[in-house]
Amino acid sequence: MSQYMDVHHGMNGITGDQLKQAHQADLAIEKEEGVHFEKAWADPESGTVYCLSEAPSAEAVQRIHERAGHPADEVHPVPLTA
Amino acid sequence: MSQYMDVHHGMNGITGDQLKQAHQADLAIEKEEGVHFEKAWADPESGTVYCLSEAPSAEAVQRIHERAGHPADEVHPVPLTA
Repeated sequence: MSQYMDVHHGMNGITGDQLKQAHQADLAIEKEEGVHFEKAWADPESGTVYCLSEAPSAEAVQRIHERAGHPADEVHPVPLTA
Repeated sequence: MSQYMDVHHGMNGITGDQLKQAHQADLAIEKEEGVHFEKAWADPESGTVYCLSEAPSAEAVQRIHERAGHPADEVHPVPLTA
């Protein structure tokens, strides 16, 4: 298991409720791929959403996001933290 | 005070020690701008570093990063979390 940061662009105008609903949609199915979405942050003005997860692979992260209806534009492993 | 996510590109090959040193350099002077850098994540392969902070403005975040020798390529307010 490793940590991943994924990024969604084009989410301009996203609301707090929409972010929570999207996150809940991930949480509802994440176990099927052994993923856990820990946190999400959104900037409605630039339309950027960042999601931090713990997962077996970047592909597993993306599969959950795709099935939940919001594929990520980038999925980066982040093995280093400080 | 708001939360900000900033992004550094071109950090290919960054090591865990280098990330910790860079983060420490921010922490050493962050109070001068009322900023607190909470966490940093790095992907050495794509050369991407994400920093989460609490700060009075994006400009304050960038001033600390610049003075510490590593200006960010993007600084986004992230008022929404889930």
